[in-house]
Amino acid sequence: MTQPVYDRVALIGLGLIASSMFWAIKRSGLAGEVTGYARSAETRETARRIGLCDRVCESAAEAVEGADLVVLCVPVGAMAPVMQQIAPVLKPGATLSDVGSVKGHVVEAILPHLPEGVHFVPAHPLAGTEHSGPESGFAELFDNRWCLLVPVEGSDRDAVDRLRRLWQGMGANVDEMDADHHDLVLAVTSHTPHLIAYTMVGVADDLRRVTDSEVIKYSAAGFRDFTRIAASDPTMWRDVFLTNKEATLEILGRFTEELFALQRAIRTGDGDHLHDYFTHTRAIRRGIIEAGQDTDAPDFGRGQAGGQTGGTDK
Amino acid sequence: MTQPVYDRVALIGLGLIASSMFWAIKRSGLAGEVTGYARSAETRETARRIGLCDRVCESAAEAVEGADLVVLCVPVGAMAPVMQQIAPVLKPGATLSDVGSVKGHVVEAILPHLPEGVHFVPAHPLAGTEHSGPESGFAELFDNRWCLLVPVEGSDRDAVDRLRRLWQGMGANVDEMDADHHDLVLAVTSHTPHLIAYTMVGVADDLRRVTDSEVIKYSAAGFRDFTRIAASDPTMWRDVFLTNKEATLEILGRFTEELFALQRAIRTGDGDHLHDYFTHTRAIRRGIIEAGQDTDAPDFGRGQAGGQTGGTDK
Repeated sequence: MTQPVYDRVALIGLGLIASSMFWAIKRSGLAGEVTGYARSAETRETARRIGLCDRVCESAAEAVEGADLVVLCVPVGAMAPVMQQIAPVLKPGATLSDVGSVKGHVVEAILPHLPEGVHFVPAHPLAGTEHSGPESGFAELFDNRWCLLVPVEGSDRDAVDRLRRLWQGMGANVDEMDADHHDLVLAVTSHTPHLIAYTMVGVADDLRRVTDSEVIKYSAAGFRDFTRIAASDPTMWRDVFLTNKEATLEILGRFTEELFALQRAIRTGDGDHLHDYFTHTRAIRRGIIEAGQDTDAPDFGRGQAGGQTGGTDK
Repeated sequence: MTQPVYDRVALIGLGLIASSMFWAIKRSGLAGEVTGYARSAETRETARRIGLCDRVCESAAEAVEGADLVVLCVPVGAMAPVMQQIAPVLKPGATLSDVGSVKGHVVEAILPHLPEGVHFVPAHPLAGTEHSGPESGFAELFDNRWCLLVPVEGSDRDAVDRLRRLWQGMGANVDEMDADHHDLVLAVTSHTPHLIAYTMVGVADDLRRVTDSEVIKYSAAGFRDFTRIAASDPTMWRDVFLTNKEATLEILGRFTEELFALQRAIRTGDGDHLHDYFTHTRAIRRGIIEAGQDTDAPDFGRGQAGGQTGGTDK
């Protein structure tokens, strides 16, 4: 067991991330006591039944009282109302953090309510599954994944370093960047790809001449991965797009611009344009493998999915 | 060892699919002799060095002579010229097949050159990796994957059934459908998703404010899967889009229509529209899991990739 990083941690919102944080904290003894609160009585009941949190409280204020670290694990759109409830009881010297997928909006929502003497250190663990709710968490979720810390102007250095130790203790690699850059990077690597996957799955389902069973049966890794991405929590993703509007719309604009150029090449039969583009993206992939960020084993991942994943279908 | 399905099989083109076919045929003793031909002298030399094919020939005609089954494993755009070379030497009663990802165009390219008494049975194995070339093949590529047979009008029933036995012997599940339906299904499940993945990878690379290393480092399953898809063989994919133009453009049209609706919802802040859409696509995913076509294990696939794949990033 490691030395605890915090005496008391409060988790507000008990979904996939919070429940995984609890089990990861317990796995390595990173906190003395972990309290929890969820808005829904049913979620609180489930949490008590499965032993999620040392103490499940009946209000956010109760859970937060006396905590050295408070982590807001609610959808981005719910941050401000929750903050209003807990601001009066936040302990002076405590650290306040969150796990939202958008950072600029969260900073704007939280800062006006931040009491003097409370350290605000926004964070974003780049980890998730297609599941949500208090029973979906597991201690290994953050192992070898990145957690991005997004300190705001005047963030206390000690508070940042302590939060970093917590995330490292939960298995994550930690980096720091500013909120605007975070939101742009995530718009590229995560938010826009998710919207595209959602769209493609919706199109496939709409097309009545191709049955759902055909779509499912004959799709290998590519499309099946799209369906997995498109199964993530709807509320969380609605809030992501509404609050990272500017960066997402910018990347979407770039995306449709490129897509239209390829579409025109298909329509006009411009094989050279297509070949050049595909050669270029292949080189990007080679760069990723050379950087050691992925494996190029040809049967990659297939064993785990009954021979139906890995590789690309044609 | 199974009883051989064919005395002599000729593979024209020695890339990923043909080389995998050779090893899968050898694994189960499905043919007496397998001859091979590739246009490039370098490829033929490599094939001889690694023992790919029982006999590597210096011309397509030589490889085809006396073969009971000839399989065209060249890019879709190269089918017609190859067919012109081999038509005069095809053995009466032999079966001619292919492995192209587009079927309508291949049928149109081949039929005018088909000699009397030769049975044409187009096929498409739904299997691949990001790799290409004679050294990329492996015997397990088709295990538990689908191979679609696309008989043309007047295809000999015995010839179809025999080819089915070969593909089953190589580990594949076999279905039959007509060429137009095949091309539409594949436009939905494979061709359009590939184009989208190519586009997204191109966008990420173009965006100078986000470095490539950031794109790579902070992208989990979603975007990383896109890069894998976007690394497939450029020539093959160029030909797919040029020859399945109509279906691909139709699905692309539907895709951009849906994407623009979601984009407008983001811009206008219409959270209900987004939430409804995402709830619907989540239900599609649940349908796939209930149909037993995929696993919903939360740490799905992670073990195989150093904890960096599986799940969706946020």
